[in-house]
Amino acid sequence: MSVDVSARAGIVVTGTEVLTGQISDRNGPWVSTQLLDLGVDVAHITVCGDRPDDLRAALRFLADEHVDLIVTSGGLGPTADDLTVATVAEFCGRELTLDTAVEAQIADIVRSWSLKRGADPDLESVRAATRKQAMVPTGATVIAPAGTAPGVVVPAGDRTPVVMVLPGPPRELQQMWPASIVADNVVAAIAGRTESTTETILMFGTAESELAETLRDAEAEVDGFDTLEITTCLRRGELEMVTRFAPHAADAYRAVADLVVHRHGATVFSTDGSTVDDQVAELLSGHRVATAESCTGGMIAARLTDRAGSSAYVMGGVVSYDNSAKTDVLDVPAAMIAEHGAVSEEVAAAMAAGALSRLGADIAVSTTGIAGPGGGSDEKPVGTVCFGIARAGGEVVTRRLVLPGDRADVRERSVTVAMHLLRRALSG
Amino acid sequence: MSVDVSARAGIVVTGTEVLTGQISDRNGPWVSTQLLDLGVDVAHITVCGDRPDDLRAALRFLADEHVDLIVTSGGLGPTADDLTVATVAEFCGRELTLDTAVEAQIADIVRSWSLKRGADPDLESVRAATRKQAMVPTGATVIAPAGTAPGVVVPAGDRTPVVMVLPGPPRELQQMWPASIVADNVVAAIAGRTESTTETILMFGTAESELAETLRDAEAEVDGFDTLEITTCLRRGELEMVTRFAPHAADAYRAVADLVVHRHGATVFSTDGSTVDDQVAELLSGHRVATAESCTGGMIAARLTDRAGSSAYVMGGVVSYDNSAKTDVLDVPAAMIAEHGAVSEEVAAAMAAGALSRLGADIAVSTTGIAGPGGGSDEKPVGTVCFGIARAGGEVVTRRLVLPGDRADVRERSVTVAMHLLRRALSG
Repeated sequence: MSVDVSARAGIVVTGTEVLTGQISDRNGPWVSTQLLDLGVDVAHITVCGDRPDDLRAALRFLADEHVDLIVTSGGLGPTADDLTVATVAEFCGRELTLDTAVEAQIADIVRSWSLKRGADPDLESVRAATRKQAMVPTGATVIAPAGTAPGVVVPAGDRTPVVMVLPGPPRELQQMWPASIVADNVVAAIAGRTESTTETILMFGTAESELAETLRDAEAEVDGFDTLEITTCLRRGELEMVTRFAPHAADAYRAVADLVVHRHGATVFSTDGSTVDDQVAELLSGHRVATAESCTGGMIAARLTDRAGSSAYVMGGVVSYDNSAKTDVLDVPAAMIAEHGAVSEEVAAAMAAGALSRLGADIAVSTTGIAGPGGGSDEKPVGTVCFGIARAGGEVVTRRLVLPGDRADVRERSVTVAMHLLRRALSG
Repeated sequence: MSVDVSARAGIVVTGTEVLTGQISDRNGPWVSTQLLDLGVDVAHITVCGDRPDDLRAALRFLADEHVDLIVTSGGLGPTADDLTVATVAEFCGRELTLDTAVEAQIADIVRSWSLKRGADPDLESVRAATRKQAMVPTGATVIAPAGTAPGVVVPAGDRTPVVMVLPGPPRELQQMWPASIVADNVVAAIAGRTESTTETILMFGTAESELAETLRDAEAEVDGFDTLEITTCLRRGELEMVTRFAPHAADAYRAVADLVVHRHGATVFSTDGSTVDDQVAELLSGHRVATAESCTGGMIAARLTDRAGSSAYVMGGVVSYDNSAKTDVLDVPAAMIAEHGAVSEEVAAAMAAGALSRLGADIAVSTTGIAGPGGGSDEKPVGTVCFGIARAGGEVVTRRLVLPGDRADVRERSVTVAMHLLRRALSG
């Protein structure tokens, strides 16, 4: 399954804190997605620490793999162990020279920051740091900084591809990306890129093995199946099928997508790239939603309020972790808890109804379950979660499931289920 | 700054869904941390898609860098595009042969799963999948599967290091790790590892540049500073300084740590590896905590209940997103909101007091703020967040801050601040 792509790139993420797992890399996947969207194939992402030898080795590896473009992130700071520009310059056989215009620009930024903090912007140590960040490989294009560190694009050499050097902080890198990608050298490097389309189908309730079976059938039935690059993955309880293909393969994709929808239509909830969060947000327009959470402990409310503008429809919620919170704040009868247990469809229904009423909402969702590791029984094993959806003037709908995985998995999966219950209730 | 480490490893993460940013890699950082803890230096993490050529290139790169051990993750599934074992076998110059004992073991697992799902375990397609997963490079050690995919450890060859092949699902990989790392071949490969210690200092309130200045002074003052491998990073609003060093450098580390604590003692909250979550959980023992959240929308409650056993001290919380939730569920006077605005220390105090009383807690924390992107004003710019801590029988303490970053940053940083306010209140 490969697409004819004729521009290839490699990504080098630097930073000992990334290599050692202290922080997780956000730049590699982000840059990869951007390049793919441009029709540039990404061959490798490599991560190395702040050691020039290892960085040099990673650059050599990618150059030897004949990529057309290398994108690096990190190592552009003012301190001595930030060595990416110097190492890339040496790798590309170019001198470093002071770019006085860039120096002045950084000095301005540092000065305004220093004054805000009440610090002295004219210290020699500050000047030295500014000067270091203004050293540019000869012939390179400078990308204006989003923080204090400018990026550079170094032209291709005899044995080296174009190298785009960007800073490590994801926000700075992302802000500088649009200017970087239109630099003449970069445009030339990725000239061979293939226009391609990426389509995503999202399912909730189909197993990965069932989809695999459908795709095996598609492989046998659909002409041009092998020109599609299909990846499937299970993410937060949803099954995602992403397909990348060249324009000439559009019919093949259509045939495969039709087969998937035909077989698994009841579980397919998105074919246009929208997420369940997007759909729920849209469906909630004009509504007032409330949450009543036990095992998810606030995660549903946190997810709903993650979006800018959610204050238009989120009234709020109650995290009724202790049983007294269920009775006192959500009006769940203590006798009901005593009879059915806190993890029961009855209590889930009462929690949702309580949230609806207490928070003046017209739709409310509830969870009560055993996230583990303790607290399970034969009748209610770890992973047992009950859900409720209450509507103003309507009945309360409940659901009881046993979700797989550890405590974090059960909680996260419960949030996904709750989002889909909201989606189904709201879409009628 | 380098430590004399004489066993080096490389990690190869495979999977198109990781390379393309569909899912984020959890295995590279995890394996890296494990290896570092064993005293094995990690040179590179590389990520490639499900293409044999790219996997082969990554293996060749690491072998040419003279690593002693390569760990791969992913590509062990039953489907045709899972090619890691076959590619590694070829790379190491070994034949694949069917291991009938492994085949029987996988068949047992698949059979019990199939029966649970009501599927037929004797289909030829199931048998073929089982057989594929039981193909083992000659001379390799088999690591028993945690799912259905066994791992293998392939011995070193003339130009190839020991290669440990593990599955992609993080839970499976992590469960199989202890057995993998004691395989004879692996023990021999990392025999040169250097015993080393990793120490972590966590600060809340010191800027990274201030710590950098302290470390520059330490470099000048402390003998043996250059034998310490120090990384600093800002994570979720906390500043983390991680130092790895060999036994002979313990005195140098002690001197640096003393200097850091001397300079930044008021902000240092952990020198023993404990997190603020650990500390708050311990301090909450015997207490009853409640939350009242507006801009954080449930994230504090979610974080507190993230831990197993938190039901012993978490009563619950209220997400009072809409003003009516603040007045109706938390008893914040409507007149107070009208006079001071929902984002004010007054309202934060009333919210905390309301949660304390409504949820029968003895300590409560509240947040109300402007996470953005809209809603800011000159007087209360985006990022303005007010916090309250209420204690049973005590005064309510409030704090007003302006936090940097976008909506997600402001929310996450607010949760960190709330955790530290709880810590400080509880530790007196």
